Amino acid sequence: MVVFSGDLDKVLAAFVIATGAASMGDSVTMFFTFWGLNALRRGGSQAGGKTFLDRMFGMMMPNGASALKLSNLNMGGMGTALMKHVMHSKNVDSLPDLMAQARQMGVKIVACSMSMGVMGLKREELIDGIELGGVAAFLGESDDAGMTLFI
Amino acid sequence: MVVFSGDLDKVLAAFVIATGAASMGDSVTMFFTFWGLNALRRGGSQAGGKTFLDRMFGMMMPNGASALKLSNLNMGGMGTALMKHVMHSKNVDSLPDLMAQARQMGVKIVACSMSMGVMGLKREELIDGIELGGVAAFLGESDDAGMTLFI
Amino acid sequence: MVVFSGDLDKVLAAFVIATGAASMGDSVTMFFTFWGLNALRRGGSQAGGKTFLDRMFGMMMPNGASALKLSNLNMGGMGTALMKHVMHSKNVDSLPDLMAQARQMGVKIVACSMSMGVMGLKREELIDGIELGGVAAFLGESDDAGMTLFI
Repeated sequence: MVVFSGDLDKVLAAFVIATGAASMGDSVTMFFTFWGLNALRRGGSQAGGKTFLDRMFGMMMPNGASALKLSNLNMGGMGTALMKHVMHSKNVDSLPDLMAQARQMGVKIVACSMSMGVMGLKREELIDGIELGGVAAFLGESDDAGMTLFI
Repeated sequence: MVVFSGDLDKVLAAFVIATGAASMGDSVTMFFTFWGLNALRRGGSQAGGKTFLDRMFGMMMPNGASALKLSNLNMGGMGTALMKHVMHSKNVDSLPDLMAQARQMGVKIVACSMSMGVMGLKREELIDGIELGGVAAFLGESDDAGMTLFI
Repeated sequence: MVVFSGDLDKVLAAFVIATGAASMGDSVTMFFTFWGLNALRRGGSQAGGKTFLDRMFGMMMPNGASALKLSNLNMGGMGTALMKHVMHSKNVDSLPDLMAQARQMGVKIVACSMSMGVMGLKREELIDGIELGGVAAFLGESDDAGMTLFI
């Protein structure tokens, strides 16, 4: 599974599918690239030693799973807040909850090293328990996968 | 096939692929989730007994296949209207036509029950001839599928 | 691989995966449809003999790989320009470079003939070295593919 998008709704869908598949005994690898990397950011301040442009990109992109926004009806953040409220009131797991479950279930999370370079993200800005890898790693995994999705 | 998007162009692509595959004798299941559910709405007024927020979400989202919009060049609806006009004048099937064909061809259409809950959509607000199912249903289908797409 | 999107970042991802897979010895077919076709446009002026609407769509859509925009943070073109600058300064291949590599590596590029009709694009407006095909062609290819992605 490639997670390219950093939209809250799409990343949620990715983790619902991933945890669902893992609970059915499938082995799951999620390869986060480009905007999807924002879901793996740790939150808090950026690492030192970044160029001005890297720092600027880092400031403009959502910093971590709790900062992602809906792809539709975001309405300046209001739609996203409402959706989180509705999910909570209906006892649907939040994204951080699903991510924790995925990791407990052994879902492998890989951050695309090339995209990290382009977007100026450093390893220490991402959450723990993930691997770094390139396209070759992803292609190696997906070669014998029963299903691959681009989200 | 997962249909996550509710953009007219993407849902069109999904049904073009689905009817194409069905006409080649493949068995096809389309799993509609999140914004994609809007393509399955019946149109008309909402069901009774919904909370204020559910009703509000229902009002803000497109109500049925004819109400979907392009992901690009929508231009306040003008681009979408133009695209429909161009498709009609070039004898390309409209989305409602393709959906009817898909159902005649035996394409299985499943609405994601979890997303319906989150978005406050009720069974009676969706068109006839579809099933409800969870992620497990989708994963069960896709386990022995030759191809899975996330649209 | 279906390339539906005409966003710079997604088309880049598609070609990174395609060239990666080709370099590992896989045979790769990219099927460009809808907005994705814009990546295959030749640039320059439009072909003659188009209807007014076709010409207008042609004017409003990006004309070629160098004209594509980011799906996020485009900011009136400034974000896209910055991203290209950053990629260049970090020695990451640009989209036109990747496309040339893909073709040298034997990646097969197919333009969806139905979408070309809908969007009013003519064969001579697209770059050389590509084939035209319909959905059946795509489904034929993907039937025995190890992996299919919808980007």
